Amino acid sequence: MIIVGELINASRKAINAAIEAGDAAAIAQVAKDQAKSGADYIDVNAGMFMGREAEYLKWLVETVQSATDRPCCIDSPDPAAIEAGLAVHKGAAMINSISLEKDRYEKMLPIVAGSGLKVVALCMSDEGMPETTDQRMSIADRLIDSLVQNNVPLDDIYVDPLVQPVSTNKMYGVEFLDAVEKIMTTFKGVHTMCGLSNISYGLPARKFMNQTLMVMAIAKGLDGAIVNPLDKRMMACITAAETLAGRDEFCTKYLKAYRAKAFEF
Amino acid sequence: MIIVGELINASRKAINAAIEAGDAAAIAQVAKDQAKSGADYIDVNAGMFMGREAEYLKWLVETVQSATDRPCCIDSPDPAAIEAGLAVHKGAAMINSISLEKDRYEKMLPIVAGSGLKVVALCMSDEGMPETTDQRMSIADRLIDSLVQNNVPLDDIYVDPLVQPVSTNKMYGVEFLDAVEKIMTTFKGVHTMCGLSNISYGLPARKFMNQTLMVMAIAKGLDGAIVNPLDKRMMACITAAETLAGRDEFCTKYLKAYRAKAFEF
Repeated sequence: MIIVGELINASRKAINAAIEAGDAAAIAQVAKDQAKSGADYIDVNAGMFMGREAEYLKWLVETVQSATDRPCCIDSPDPAAIEAGLAVHKGAAMINSISLEKDRYEKMLPIVAGSGLKVVALCMSDEGMPETTDQRMSIADRLIDSLVQNNVPLDDIYVDPLVQPVSTNKMYGVEFLDAVEKIMTTFKGVHTMCGLSNISYGLPARKFMNQTLMVMAIAKGLDGAIVNPLDKRMMACITAAETLAGRDEFCTKYLKAYRAKAFEF
Repeated sequence: MIIVGELINASRKAINAAIEAGDAAAIAQVAKDQAKSGADYIDVNAGMFMGREAEYLKWLVETVQSATDRPCCIDSPDPAAIEAGLAVHKGAAMINSISLEKDRYEKMLPIVAGSGLKVVALCMSDEGMPETTDQRMSIADRLIDSLVQNNVPLDDIYVDPLVQPVSTNKMYGVEFLDAVEKIMTTFKGVHTMCGLSNISYGLPARKFMNQTLMVMAIAKGLDGAIVNPLDKRMMACITAAETLAGRDEFCTKYLKAYRAKAFEF
């Protein structure tokens, strides 16, 4: 399971302030905390800063990599901003994200083609957010096919089926979960990756709902997640679900998490 | 989702004592508490009392049904004890359980054949506990086929795939989960039902592990569970998972549970 730590995002107040103030120590601390809590990649997002996104993204990459040994997940819809971040990144970054939206697709493809980078591939097209499993599969099919043809191996592709709020349609959970399963079984070797918090939009007890969907998605094959690694309950859910999904020899990860008090709620 | 409340079981100290003392008020209270917390059936088990099981089971059925309007799940491997309980039961009981073990099968079949009773069908044969999905499917196939031929409709059959501890084999979670999915998709209209606590045998934080498996099993199609309905966290997991599984129009059940403070942990 690949964990992408989501906290260094300019849409969060404290991060926004730290970026504006050039407070490298604050950013470094959040990077370290996430790495310590199990993040494999540190997401960096400066999307709130119109006009300065590329500059800030570059600074974020440098700041994170001076504090931890984890690669970054460079998070922007803007290819120029991504390239600025990549220019200073050491090791193989993850790019967040490409999609089937024509403009984004055409500008992002040259960056990832044959690059050895990991890439998040959103099930999104110019027709908007998909609603059904079939719509997601149709987009995933075209995206994966084109990426593979452009020398991005399946193992470097993380398909995000995109979650929609279950409060607006009772089938939105199922359509997402079935898409995870179908993507993982149809394109053997590809990965799935997502943020889940949209599912609980408009509902109370959102964290609990998000954790529950995470466990269900792992049952369906999900092997990547963009989460807050400091959320001990979410991380415990992921660990336990992985153990039950047959991904934990001798329950080693589960026992280690227990000893680290991950299950004290 | 059918919830069978598991608490009235003579293997539990307080229940054992209440049965021996003929303390109907104590049993009635546990029945009422479970019904109030969402149990659709109240399991009654007097298996610890060799020689007096039939007598006690009869008393338990009468006591539970004088306290609640819920039917019982009459729980014994002994057909004579089941018949004693059935003789005084009002309405359609659930029988727990038939299996493919020759002796139990031959004695239990005449009780359930064409009876209108619900029946739990264990994936167990004289060859012992199944380990793989295929072994479970082979037993389920023969059991379901024979029950249907003996006028037990699919809708009255609750197949229990049987859970084995993940601490002894990392694939035991997956083999169980895949069996749930395969049973539900292969025999359209049948139900699945199980107690889950075996999964966490030998591990710490057992309740958390059991809750996690429950959520995963619902993602795979599980629609019945033998649980402690007073375990608010477990019931919250079931409610949230059902909402995400597309079984909760307008999130009504989820919102109701939230208002009843089921999500306060």
